[in-house]
Amino acid sequence: MPSLPAALETELAELLGEGWRSDAAILAAHGGDGSRHRAAPLGVATPADRAQVGALVRACRRHRVPLVARGGGTSSTGAALAGGAVAVSFARMDRILDIRTDDRIAIVEPGVRNGALQHALAAHGLFWPPDPASADDCTVGGNLACNAGGPRTVKYGASRDNVLGLAAVTGTGDIVTVGGATTKDATGYDLTHLIVGSEGTLALIVEATLKLAPLPEARASLRALYDDAAAAAAAVARIMAQPAAPSMLEFMDAACIRLAREVGGAEIAEAGALLLIEADGDAATLPHALDALERAARGAGLRAIERAADDAAGARLWAARKALSHAQRAIAPAKLNEDVVVPVSRIPALVDGIQALAREFDLPIIAFGHAGNGNLHANILYDPADAGQDARAHAALPRLFALALSLGGTLSGEHGIGTAKRGFMRDAFDAPTLAAMRAVKAALDPDGILNPGKVLPEA
Amino acid sequence: MPSLPAALETELAELLGEGWRSDAAILAAHGGDGSRHRAAPLGVATPADRAQVGALVRACRRHRVPLVARGGGTSSTGAALAGGAVAVSFARMDRILDIRTDDRIAIVEPGVRNGALQHALAAHGLFWPPDPASADDCTVGGNLACNAGGPRTVKYGASRDNVLGLAAVTGTGDIVTVGGATTKDATGYDLTHLIVGSEGTLALIVEATLKLAPLPEARASLRALYDDAAAAAAAVARIMAQPAAPSMLEFMDAACIRLAREVGGAEIAEAGALLLIEADGDAATLPHALDALERAARGAGLRAIERAADDAAGARLWAARKALSHAQRAIAPAKLNEDVVVPVSRIPALVDGIQALAREFDLPIIAFGHAGNGNLHANILYDPADAGQDARAHAALPRLFALALSLGGTLSGEHGIGTAKRGFMRDAFDAPTLAAMRAVKAALDPDGILNPGKVLPEA
Repeated sequence: MPSLPAALETELAELLGEGWRSDAAILAAHGGDGSRHRAAPLGVATPADRAQVGALVRACRRHRVPLVARGGGTSSTGAALAGGAVAVSFARMDRILDIRTDDRIAIVEPGVRNGALQHALAAHGLFWPPDPASADDCTVGGNLACNAGGPRTVKYGASRDNVLGLAAVTGTGDIVTVGGATTKDATGYDLTHLIVGSEGTLALIVEATLKLAPLPEARASLRALYDDAAAAAAAVARIMAQPAAPSMLEFMDAACIRLAREVGGAEIAEAGALLLIEADGDAATLPHALDALERAARGAGLRAIERAADDAAGARLWAARKALSHAQRAIAPAKLNEDVVVPVSRIPALVDGIQALAREFDLPIIAFGHAGNGNLHANILYDPADAGQDARAHAALPRLFALALSLGGTLSGEHGIGTAKRGFMRDAFDAPTLAAMRAVKAALDPDGILNPGKVLPEA
Repeated sequence: MPSLPAALETELAELLGEGWRSDAAILAAHGGDGSRHRAAPLGVATPADRAQVGALVRACRRHRVPLVARGGGTSSTGAALAGGAVAVSFARMDRILDIRTDDRIAIVEPGVRNGALQHALAAHGLFWPPDPASADDCTVGGNLACNAGGPRTVKYGASRDNVLGLAAVTGTGDIVTVGGATTKDATGYDLTHLIVGSEGTLALIVEATLKLAPLPEARASLRALYDDAAAAAAAVARIMAQPAAPSMLEFMDAACIRLAREVGGAEIAEAGALLLIEADGDAATLPHALDALERAARGAGLRAIERAADDAAGARLWAARKALSHAQRAIAPAKLNEDVVVPVSRIPALVDGIQALAREFDLPIIAFGHAGNGNLHANILYDPADAGQDARAHAALPRLFALALSLGGTLSGEHGIGTAKRGFMRDAFDAPTLAAMRAVKAALDPDGILNPGKVLPEA
C-alpha cells in the first residue's frame, strides 16, 4: 500500500489549508463510488480555485503521487476510485459563474451538481441537455469527464455535444484554456472534446462553458407495443429517419415487460418489445410532432399504441419503465449494469444475443434503454451471495461485450470505462489505436499521475 | 528549395505505380489552393487505398520528407499548400462505401466530393449537414480536416458535429480506427473529433463514418430589416432562445445592404441590418415554425419583415445575399475574406468595430454570414495593384482578429487556420495551451512530417 510522503503532506496542508484532510473520516467518505468497490485515497484535496488545482498537481507531480478527480462520486465504473492516490474533490468549486441567455451558455465550476444547474437554468427558460439518472447527485465536471448522457441524448446530444469550452489542468500542472462562448470553431486542435470523456486521465476540468438549449413549453408521449424486438427496432429506424426528432426514445425488451408486469405490477399488456416515445416543443407544433412520431411508430408488428397528451398521462405511460427498477431489486439483490451501444439496425440482434446469454448462463438479463442511440442497458441480475450465480454473472459479462463489438457497437454509450471495462479495451480497439491513445495520454500527462489504471489497459 | 531524395522517389513509384507522379504538369496542377498562394509540391501521390497511405507515410517518414493531404484544393487558408512536401491527393479514394439508412450513416472514402455525396444521399431522403459554398468541388476529407461549416450549421452543426468515426493514418504510418456507426460513445479517448479540424497535421483521414440527417420535406424563409446591427443581434438572440431552430440564420450589415442595393441591383429597402431566416420541416409543422421565428424576429428596431412560403419566393428574399458576391467583385478586384466568430451577443460590437476599422484604414469592409453561430464573414475589399490599399488591407487584418478575440470570440469559425492565420494563434491561445497542442501534435506525428508549418505557430 503506497503512502503519502510526509513532505508532500506538509506542502499540501500549507497550500490548501482547510482544503486538505487525511483523517480516517474523510478518507472513508471518499473511498467509494457508484461501482460499489471501495479504495481509500491517501488524502482528500478540496481546492478553492484553479490556481490551487494547478499547484496541487505540480506538487503531486514532484513526488510522483497520483491524483483522482472526484465529482459526486456516482460513477458506476470505478472511475472515481482513488486508492493509492490523492482524491481531488471539487466540492468547493461548485459555483455557476455566469448564465448568458443571449449566448445560450453557462460558465460553471466543475463541482456544481447537474440538478442544481438545471434548477438555476429553468428560471431563464433554458436547460443543459445531459440528464443522467443521478442528476441530483452527480456534478457537471463528472458528467463531462465521463461524457454522461441520458434519455434526452437522442435529440440533444450527450455531454460532449453540449460543451463549448474548458479550462483544465493537465498532468504538468499547466492550465489549458480551449474553446469558449461560441458555437462554431475551426481554430486549432479540439482539446475540449478530447478532454471530455477522458475520465480525468488527461486533465482536471476547472471550468466549463456549456451549450444550453431552450426549455420546451410542453411534452407529450406515446407508448407502443410490438410483437418482437425486430418490429420495435424497425420502428426506431423509421422514427429516426424523419425530421421530428423525439426528445426521448426508450426501449424495453420482452424480459423487461414481463418483469414490470409480473413483479413490478405495471398495468401493461404482454408484448415482445415496447417503445416509449416522447416529443417536446411548443403548444402549436407538439401535436404535429406527435402525429409524425405516431405515423413512424406504426408498422408491421405493432400491437397497440397509446398516446398521452399531458405530463400526468405521460407519467402513466412511463410507469412500466419506473416499475422496472423496483422489480429488479425484488428478484435479485444485485445486477451488473452495462450500457453497451450498437448501431440502431442491430438492436434486434443485440436483444436476441442477450437472451441467448441469459439462457446459457441461466440468469435473468434484461435489456432496455436509449433505443434512438442504440444504447441499451443490459442488466445481469444475480445474487452475489450465491457463488454459482456470482461466477456465471461475471462470466456472462465478457460475452456481452463481445456481442456488442461483433455487432459493430462498443463497450459504453454513457457510463464510461473506469476500471470496470478497462480489461475489454483491447477488444474494442486495435493495438495501433491504443498506442495512439497512450501517446496522447503521455503528451498531456507525461508522468502518468492523473487517474492511473483507468480507461487505457496496461501497455 | 528542398528536393525529393532519389531513393524515396524510386520507393514511391514502386509502391504507388501510376499513383505517383512528379512531372511539371502534375506539380502545377497541385500547386495552389483557394488561398491564391502557390507552392509546388515535390511530387503528387494518389494512393488507391489506406494500406498505400500507411506505406506512403512510413516511406516519407524514413526520409523525413513531409506530406500534405489534399482534397478539392479549395481551402482559403493555404492548408493544402504542399511546397517542399509530397502532396497526397485522395482523388482515387473517392468512393461512397456504404449508406445505411436505418442507422442514418454513410461510410465514405475521404476523396468523395461533398456535392456528389449529397446527391447520392438525397435518393435515400437523407443529407450530410456541412454545406460549404464550395460543396461541388470540396471533398468530405477536406471538410473534416478543416471542420467546414456553412449556413445550415446553425441547426445541424458543422463537420465535427456530424462525424461518428474515422480511420486515419498518423505520422508514424499507423492506421488508427476510432468511433463507428453509433451516435453515442463513452469508450476511450475521442480521437475522432481531435483529428477533425486538425488540417492534416495530426493524421490523414482514410475513411469516415458520417452522421446523416433526414432531408426536410420543405423550406420557408423570412427576411427582416432592422434599424441597426444591435436590433438585429437582439432578434438573433430571441430566435436562438426559442425551440424552433432556424435551418439558416444569415446576417448582412449596413455596408452589405448598401452594396447589394447600389452595386448589385438588389430590390431591397435601405436598412441598418438584415436577417435572412429559414426554417425547414414537414408541411404540417413548417408554418408553425415560421410563425415562431417571425414572432422572435419581431421586436424593437424592426423595420419590415417579409415571408416566402415556397422555394421560388425564398429565392427572391435571398437575392440580396447573392447580389453581394457580384457587387464585391465590381467595386474591388480582391478581398481578404475572414470568418471570425464571436458570441451572438457581441455581434453588434463586432459590426461596429469592423466599421471603425473600415474608416481607419479607408477601405470598404463588409460583414455578413452565419449570425446564429456568431460567425461573420468580414471581407476587406481592396485592389492589390494599389500598393497603399494592399498595405492598408493587410494592416487591418491583425486588428480584425484582435477585435474578435477582445469580444470573447476566435479566429475562425469554419475556414480554419492554415498558414493564413497561423501567426495569430499566439493571440488566440496562451503559451500553456499552445504547448499542450504541440505535445498532442508530437504524440501523433513524432517527426513533424504531416503538414508542417500549418495551424500551430513556431515554438
